[in-house]
Amino acid sequence: MDTLGKTITCLAAIAWKKNSLSLEKVEVEPPKAGEVRIKMISTGICGSDDHTIKGIILVKYPFIPGHEGAGIVESIGEGVSSVKPGDKVLTLAVPQCRECSACLHPKGNFCEKQELGETHLMSDGTSRFTCKGKPVYHFGNTSTFSEYTVMNEISVTKIDAAAPLEKVFLVSCGFSTGYGGAINTAKVTPGSTCAVFGLGGVGLSVIMGCKAAGAARIIAVDVNKDKFEKAKEVGATECINPQDYEKPIQEVLFDLTGDGVDFSFEVIGNPETVAAALASCHESHGVCVIIGLVVGVQLNISGHLFFSGRTLKGSVYGGWKGRDGASKLVSDYMAKKINLDALITHTLNFDKINEAVELMKTGKCVRCVLLL
Amino acid sequence: MDTLGKTITCLAAIAWKKNSLSLEKVEVEPPKAGEVRIKMISTGICGSDDHTIKGIILVKYPFIPGHEGAGIVESIGEGVSSVKPGDKVLTLAVPQCRECSACLHPKGNFCEKQELGETHLMSDGTSRFTCKGKPVYHFGNTSTFSEYTVMNEISVTKIDAAAPLEKVFLVSCGFSTGYGGAINTAKVTPGSTCAVFGLGGVGLSVIMGCKAAGAARIIAVDVNKDKFEKAKEVGATECINPQDYEKPIQEVLFDLTGDGVDFSFEVIGNPETVAAALASCHESHGVCVIIGLVVGVQLNISGHLFFSGRTLKGSVYGGWKGRDGASKLVSDYMAKKINLDALITHTLNFDKINEAVELMKTGKCVRCVLLL
Ligand SMILES: [Zn+2]
Ligand SMILES: [Zn+2]
Ligand SMILES: [Zn+2]
Ligand SMILES: [Zn+2]
Repeated sequence: MDTLGKTITCLAAIAWKKNSLSLEKVEVEPPKAGEVRIKMISTGICGSDDHTIKGIILVKYPFIPGHEGAGIVESIGEGVSSVKPGDKVLTLAVPQCRECSACLHPKGNFCEKQELGETHLMSDGTSRFTCKGKPVYHFGNTSTFSEYTVMNEISVTKIDAAAPLEKVFLVSCGFSTGYGGAINTAKVTPGSTCAVFGLGGVGLSVIMGCKAAGAARIIAVDVNKDKFEKAKEVGATECINPQDYEKPIQEVLFDLTGDGVDFSFEVIGNPETVAAALASCHESHGVCVIIGLVVGVQLNISGHLFFSGRTLKGSVYGGWKGRDGASKLVSDYMAKKINLDALITHTLNFDKINEAVELMKTGKCVRCVLLL
Repeated sequence: MDTLGKTITCLAAIAWKKNSLSLEKVEVEPPKAGEVRIKMISTGICGSDDHTIKGIILVKYPFIPGHEGAGIVESIGEGVSSVKPGDKVLTLAVPQCRECSACLHPKGNFCEKQELGETHLMSDGTSRFTCKGKPVYHFGNTSTFSEYTVMNEISVTKIDAAAPLEKVFLVSCGFSTGYGGAINTAKVTPGSTCAVFGLGGVGLSVIMGCKAAGAARIIAVDVNKDKFEKAKEVGATECINPQDYEKPIQEVLFDLTGDGVDFSFEVIGNPETVAAALASCHESHGVCVIIGLVVGVQLNISGHLFFSGRTLKGSVYGGWKGRDGASKLVSDYMAKKINLDALITHTLNFDKINEAVELMKTGKCVRCVLLL
């Protein structure tokens, strides 16, 4: 523990401006009260990271992106009690303070302390990162694209000591978001018919969730047919490409199912697709879950779609209470109840991060893990 | 039964064109197979009736409006088995065929046979009404503004023989729509906070449902403060008028509640109010139910409202399976479990129908019952 209490100099990927990510030497200060310093072992690149790099999500430059990660606690600040140095942990974009109205309510999971991430600084109004003598902003209270990061305790969850960090990082965001969207938010029922719009890592995790919940028919929808093989591998029973039809996709789904699907999932973040996914549901009991990021966009939906009883639900981090959900899902992985391996298609060293960002944009990469 | 098998001549209110309703002598043919002829005893005038009279809802002129009614079976067509002459019945705008995917599914209630109403004729493509030698269209397969009407068996439900028809007609639409919206669609939980936008008969019934479900706080919202007294009488704990505030109503509700309401209900059918009602909910677990008629309008909603987990649900006839729900609610009324009397503020004879239509538009009339 020769780093204890000291500033650590290490490598991190800094976004200096839109679409510009470069590896730099950064200084990472020790954790203050309620904070945890983590030696990152693995990080994924999620769709939201691309949004941050492109500057679609509100950020402050320069910053260190990344939110889907796994690592080992290096040191803890005053008052931290849920993790200790040496613990394996996941980094959570949705914290769990266990005190706010969202954490205390039996339903919902969007901890009000989420807002701490909006300052792009730690709770005391300062950053723990500097580069070339200047402060560097945090992102989402995670900033996993760094060999060391500092986070609030409420965003860090201890996991099984035997968990392989190069796999379970996926529980930190993508897998849990999709899988929980089906299990927790939609509450997919046995024998039901589901449609999943968008077959990235999160969409594939939705398919896994539908399958685990006992769905009889899982229709995977994407404009990129290269994604169909993997979708079938993880549980899709049919795959369709909207570009193969003249009709709107909701009509195609009614043709295929007779009365529409019981559950639909929008995993793209496109307002038109949200409307189509809702219209694809059974008019009476159909439930459409929005998993794709629709922040900053207006949804324009015919009121008629709701008249007969349809439901439109938002879902964040798959409805899991952050720390409780992530720990449970890692245990489920260790017990072989869930499969993460199918989602990890590429492994690169951290210094290849720009290559990984490019890979993510191709249909061939589901998830690339970066090893730090 | 000297009318059995014969055409009956009686009084009915005919809408000849937009905003024109007049009492006429009509001929009502006997019921054909699967049909029931009913001697109407009472009918309410619901907001939707005003929509039909104004021509906002698709209709075919000339037609006989009205859907919220109670009566006695005069005769039945071939194959009708669930009711017999002399039975007290309610007329349902949402049928229950017990065979379609909606009727057979444990959730949802929008029977697919609803579409029968869209032809404005009976199943054989003809009308049972004529006036001055010309056919008159049906409305919603109900047409209760007539001393006698003919309906499909699936839209007629037998009720307790002791039920007072001048009260329980409200179960046929308004009361059940609001009460069930709270109980069935939102599934209001004990101790929760609710907001109800719009305090007509349906909105008041929502308040009754919230109260029955054990809500701790029921905030009634309307621009007409004359409606507040009745709202408090049936269970509202607070009443607010958006016009008394500079802030948007959702901000007022956050100020009042801290974190937004657990459940909100839009009972107006205004797209802006739907967006405000959704925004008034708790960002994480909040549920907004659309009860107002939003057919033919576009909802324009910020995607951000869904991001954190909010739910927007449609509700039709309060989520009750038509015939089962209506019979049960009449039994509940007879067992004094629900209160309809508070909603019936005016009683008029059928020939005063135009006066009743005018009354409905004032804030002072909750429901006017017409006695036939
Ligand atoms: Zn993510
Ligand atoms: Zn919290
Ligand atoms: Zn009505
Ligand atoms: Zn049916």
